[in-house]
Amino acid sequence: MHKSRLGALVVDCQTEDLWQEAEFWSAALGARSEDKAGQVNEKYIRLKNEEGDTQVLLQSVDHPSRVHLDIETDDIGAEVNRLIQLGATVVDRLQKWVVMQAPSGHRFCVIGPVRAGFDEHANVWS
Amino acid sequence: MHKSRLGALVVDCQTEDLWQEAEFWSAALGARSEDKAGQVNEKYIRLKNEEGDTQVLLQSVDHPSRVHLDIETDDIGAEVNRLIQLGATVVDRLQKWVVMQAPSGHRFCVIGPVRAGFDEHANVWS
Repeated sequence: MHKSRLGALVVDCQTEDLWQEAEFWSAALGARSEDKAGQVNEKYIRLKNEEGDTQVLLQSVDHPSRVHLDIETDDIGAEVNRLIQLGATVVDRLQKWVVMQAPSGHRFCVIGPVRAGFDEHANVWS
Repeated sequence: MHKSRLGALVVDCQTEDLWQEAEFWSAALGARSEDKAGQVNEKYIRLKNEEGDTQVLLQSVDHPSRVHLDIETDDIGAEVNRLIQLGATVVDRLQKWVVMQAPSGHRFCVIGPVRAGFDEHANVWS
């Protein structure tokens, strides 16, 4: 038995200045960006929206800009297998997450839990 | 004074069978799709996720598949003006919503309220 749900949406930006993109998206969505000093990984900036809401991240990328979804789960291996059964394919297995592609052609990632309320609100798969 | 926040994410699918794409995304995200009989507009299928959560829609499109964000607001005109001040541009003004482009190059839409809890939880702009 494991759990999953939509965890985050990631605004992938092909940019040399992710903080400038964060300034717009932060103001547009009314969600303060994390502090520059507290940035955990320089490729990502998290926008602090309401507790429990779908998380919004900005990511600096080399490919053309787009938006992708992250599915959060407490068992990445089991969730990836479930999604393969549904028709998705594995694009890349990284240390902390797996990049997949949906039958509709959209790339998405399978990651660990990121949103508050995961245990109570995620879907349970057996 | 008006309000806005992230309202929905839209999975734009270049497809001849949106219901087939909905079958995958519905199962992947654990969110039942609306009934075929109750479909309001044949270009869209709404996934029924948890009350108050960011809404997820599938849209049938002619352009390449992607994901885009919808900002929900109680005053589309005022919100579009606010976003223009932040650096976004208007791509198309339709009857019920406005298509815009962020400085980062991402297209997004400004729409009326779609998520439960809009009045209590949206950002207030004066």
